Amino acid sequence: MFQVRTDLAVETRELYKENKQQEIPGVEVEKDQMENEIEVTRVKIIDEQGSQLMGRAKGSYITVEARGLKNADADLKDSVSKVLAKELARLLPGKKSINSLVVGLGNWNVTPDALGPHVISKILVTRHLFKMYNKTEDSTMSSVSAFSPGVMGTTGIETSDIIKGVVEKSKPDLVLAIDALASRKMERVSTTIQISTTGISPGSGVGNSRKQLDEKTLGIPVVAIGVPTVVDAATMTNDTIGMVVKALKSHSEKDSQFFKLLDNMKEEEKYELIKEVLEPYGANVIVTTKGIDKIITDISQIIANGINIALHPGIDLKDVNRYLN
Amino acid sequence: MFQVRTDLAVETRELYKENKQQEIPGVEVEKDQMENEIEVTRVKIIDEQGSQLMGRAKGSYITVEARGLKNADADLKDSVSKVLAKELARLLPGKKSINSLVVGLGNWNVTPDALGPHVISKILVTRHLFKMYNKTEDSTMSSVSAFSPGVMGTTGIETSDIIKGVVEKSKPDLVLAIDALASRKMERVSTTIQISTTGISPGSGVGNSRKQLDEKTLGIPVVAIGVPTVVDAATMTNDTIGMVVKALKSHSEKDSQFFKLLDNMKEEEKYELIKEVLEPYGANVIVTTKGIDKIITDISQIIANGINIALHPGIDLKDVNRYLN
Amino acid sequence: MFQVRTDLAVETRELYKENKQQEIPGVEVEKDQMENEIEVTRVKIIDEQGSQLMGRAKGSYITVEARGLKNADADLKDSVSKVLAKELARLLPGKKSINSLVVGLGNWNVTPDALGPHVISKILVTRHLFKMYNKTEDSTMSSVSAFSPGVMGTTGIETSDIIKGVVEKSKPDLVLAIDALASRKMERVSTTIQISTTGISPGSGVGNSRKQLDEKTLGIPVVAIGVPTVVDAATMTNDTIGMVVKALKSHSEKDSQFFKLLDNMKEEEKYELIKEVLEPYGANVIVTTKGIDKIITDISQIIANGINIALHPGIDLKDVNRYLN
Amino acid sequence: MFQVRTDLAVETRELYKENKQQEIPGVEVEKDQMENEIEVTRVKIIDEQGSQLMGRAKGSYITVEARGLKNADADLKDSVSKVLAKELARLLPGKKSINSLVVGLGNWNVTPDALGPHVISKILVTRHLFKMYNKTEDSTMSSVSAFSPGVMGTTGIETSDIIKGVVEKSKPDLVLAIDALASRKMERVSTTIQISTTGISPGSGVGNSRKQLDEKTLGIPVVAIGVPTVVDAATMTNDTIGMVVKALKSHSEKDSQFFKLLDNMKEEEKYELIKEVLEPYGANVIVTTKGIDKIITDISQIIANGINIALHPGIDLKDVNRYLN
Repeated sequence: MFQVRTDLAVETRELYKENKQQEIPGVEVEKDQMENEIEVTRVKIIDEQGSQLMGRAKGSYITVEARGLKNADADLKDSVSKVLAKELARLLPGKKSINSLVVGLGNWNVTPDALGPHVISKILVTRHLFKMYNKTEDSTMSSVSAFSPGVMGTTGIETSDIIKGVVEKSKPDLVLAIDALASRKMERVSTTIQISTTGISPGSGVGNSRKQLDEKTLGIPVVAIGVPTVVDAATMTNDTIGMVVKALKSHSEKDSQFFKLLDNMKEEEKYELIKEVLEPYGANVIVTTKGIDKIITDISQIIANGINIALHPGIDLKDVNRYLN
Repeated sequence: MFQVRTDLAVETRELYKENKQQEIPGVEVEKDQMENEIEVTRVKIIDEQGSQLMGRAKGSYITVEARGLKNADADLKDSVSKVLAKELARLLPGKKSINSLVVGLGNWNVTPDALGPHVISKILVTRHLFKMYNKTEDSTMSSVSAFSPGVMGTTGIETSDIIKGVVEKSKPDLVLAIDALASRKMERVSTTIQISTTGISPGSGVGNSRKQLDEKTLGIPVVAIGVPTVVDAATMTNDTIGMVVKALKSHSEKDSQFFKLLDNMKEEEKYELIKEVLEPYGANVIVTTKGIDKIITDISQIIANGINIALHPGIDLKDVNRYLN
Repeated sequence: MFQVRTDLAVETRELYKENKQQEIPGVEVEKDQMENEIEVTRVKIIDEQGSQLMGRAKGSYITVEARGLKNADADLKDSVSKVLAKELARLLPGKKSINSLVVGLGNWNVTPDALGPHVISKILVTRHLFKMYNKTEDSTMSSVSAFSPGVMGTTGIETSDIIKGVVEKSKPDLVLAIDALASRKMERVSTTIQISTTGISPGSGVGNSRKQLDEKTLGIPVVAIGVPTVVDAATMTNDTIGMVVKALKSHSEKDSQFFKLLDNMKEEEKYELIKEVLEPYGANVIVTTKGIDKIITDISQIIANGINIALHPGIDLKDVNRYLN
Repeated sequence: MFQVRTDLAVETRELYKENKQQEIPGVEVEKDQMENEIEVTRVKIIDEQGSQLMGRAKGSYITVEARGLKNADADLKDSVSKVLAKELARLLPGKKSINSLVVGLGNWNVTPDALGPHVISKILVTRHLFKMYNKTEDSTMSSVSAFSPGVMGTTGIETSDIIKGVVEKSKPDLVLAIDALASRKMERVSTTIQISTTGISPGSGVGNSRKQLDEKTLGIPVVAIGVPTVVDAATMTNDTIGMVVKALKSHSEKDSQFFKLLDNMKEEEKYELIKEVLEPYGANVIVTTKGIDKIITDISQIIANGINIALHPGIDLKDVNRYLN
């Protein structure tokens, strides 16, 4: 089975379908068309076979996509926040008053990796108020805390250990983890939000995959929210070569042997070859878009709004804009 | 006994001396003149009386002052880093290989409160390398980790709880905590560094004092490093009024009754009166200097260099500049 | 005539009224209560006497005030943008298609002085599109350019010279200049917007008053928009002393001589005395609010939206949010 | 003649040599090995043929390269500043007291494009002091001004027009223009500085080439300083494909026809093909390195130091560090 370099379940599935011309066994897919051309795809991996073919744990992977986000107006942003809130709410435990901890993964000082910390700065945090007034529940608010653990390269500590320490002290019922992801396609950068119930590997988006953060390691459910902010350089080159060869093919039909060779080459091998060839470009190469600074600002607001509405029962988008933005 | 609004032990002592014309009982003071007009003052509170008069726990309070830091050249910065390193080294446990956690208190998003997080971003972090190579000691490096816990207003969690959680998971021998402080005098902003062995209250500099961070609460020694980045508005006004009255006095000797009234008014009462009067200026007023953005950048480098040299036995200023800046 | 240290005409007038218990001769004042508790005050200096008493050039000074801006919701922000746009529109030349240059005064690197550059980054700039398509007018857009000239301390060039150079090359019909101001009262920081038709002195808010920018120096009308982001330290202390003395007075009626002295002291003298006394705090002391980083972000968006609506005839708030935010 | 997509003259020449196995006619090349493994290459285009083959104006293109800059220590940084200063000094007019204007091209808000504005913020600006003290020359300082004109997309005005306007008002003898460039090779990002006497096209590095800035358009000499901060995505893919094909070739010697096809394909055509294929990745794709935020900070300091030493006759590196950093 070929390995796909993408953090998006929806892309893994797309690739499989392109290659095998069929849906992945053990995987259920559901699509919803929402207002404002927002598309929701719910990929559910239901058994071991699905898990292996997808290279992912069993569970739900929900993608909220809106191509319009590239040049979004305030209405579309609000709609995406609302759709995100609705999808999140479906994943939250039924319990009346959930005590959540929102964790912003990534590095403040590397723009495309700063999504998590940016979201944290916009979360409506209330846990200290619950403590101060000695309350355990409230009809409009739930207890929410939020923090950014940094990345191992700058803290020296496994990010999952920091989070575990904070979880043990602050005792939330749920962790919501935000991270930047890598996509196969530039068009998904900033236009796609993935929610999943199977946890997250901090730093996967920028190529420093670390210990998993999930219910097994933390002891409480982990809902992950990710947005592609970069494209993997090897993937981009790989895709480009595929397209170049396709274009060349039409020019020179006779040169069939080479193309057979290329076509028959395993994706895996081809990818490794390119990776090797890209080596001199350095492990630190990132492919992103010129507008990434602004994108991080915008999409972090959309996600923070979605989380704020989903977690606080008596608060809607108007209130969020009222009290926070 | 009057309460002094300052985070600097050296200022409390100064005030006492000005008022009582004698050294504070129970307090030992030692001064050293170093290279480049750097002055080190070591205030040691040795008994209960000293502690009460100073309004501070027993222990050492070391002040490194260099007026030149206002417009420092690279040489002076290096000198201050070296002096700081030497003073820090004297406070470290004798143990050969110390495992330290450097904690940067304060809020990234409020410039004068961002000193701690800035220092963290410049610390030479090695703990993950020790783990990776399964080492416990090394002749040139010690194991150092570093992180910024945020502030309770944005995390919803007591900062001391976050730090406790991280300490329990990462098991350091020592915590080094960095924070922005408030001074009584603008001239101390950016020119004075205080080291103390008695812990720290996160957020004291910007007026949100929180639970103490010290050996009692964390179970390991806590060395605090602070730099004034703001002046307390009430203190500034108080001082100014004192000086205005003094200036007026010389103009109108006869009006003695009023000045007696003012002179006899307890410092405490006067301060409270001013505080009340300043109320409409809002709890959030800060008095700082125009250059505060640049000062935070510069002084955080000086402190990080000092820490890096003090903690890593085989590393000197040249190496620090070589590998980090 | 006493000198008032404030950039707000409305505060000068307030002070005069407080002192003289009458309206300033030669000055017309008109107040409008708008939606959402937004108050518009239009101060018009109509003759030489008014000009002298106000210490300002003849012309219009319009203040848009909304106390709610301290914790504004999206609705209030939008309302303020709309009110601002309406007031601006009344000041624009009647000409159908105005070619405007928006100038953001101030220093990117000093937070409270960065209002102008922040506004510039949010202006809907179209001049290059008019050039590209060789158009001179359009039913929905007008030709708008925008830039930040920096401050003399970092450019070495008089800001007014840079603007003159750019005006000569780009030939706008109108300059809109944005700057940070100083207020007498902390409560006005971030809640008050002043528009005036008489030009502006770059840097007045942070105490580096420079050559005037006005119709006389630039040859085209200059509309200035300013928002207080700092309070003058001497003013704050002066006001505080006044209030302290008032509070003390009620305690000790008999000490009448001193208070007479203080009361009779000319405002000017008292201010100068305090200024002198504050000297050691440094010329660079600024008094602002802890939230200034966020305030600059928010208020710059409100002003940019107001300008964008006022300048582009076919564009409303919805479109501005659609295309820009 | 094939078109090379690089802003570095030294890369154009390299490519020519690789392809033709000879030096470009009409071009003189001189190499100097300096301290600390810094390599200086001086490419001089001396006639029309050289100009055409290089796709560049006649003049000097000097490259200062130091691979070590990737992880530079303070010594290497200082050495590069000194080498840069020396090369710059050779290009300055012989006149005793030069009045220079340093222009920082690029966009503050796009990290890899922010090199110019960052350099500006570190230039030792003196022109206003010369004016204030009514001096025209000084034994240690020369008159230096500096500003960042922004980019046309955010100002609406041709960058060259803004600069022309400022030049006319401030009357410098020389313009030094700083810009971010694009390289063919990731290894050159942040390790190579190019100086040229033939002017610059603002924005070429990030793909928005604009009107030329040179002696012809400004009426005074223009010395350009550029550093690659990005790699052109099409170039990277192109190079990668070349290397992949080479690797494949060794696997399948027999498939000679295809390789002949590819080898014989004109570089130009191949590049265009890839460019087309990359289209869906968006015009805004940038390929850079994860550390770009820090690189911009570091390299801007090195360049600013170099300029400060070169322009001010009585100032050396020690002073620059003393007064500026």
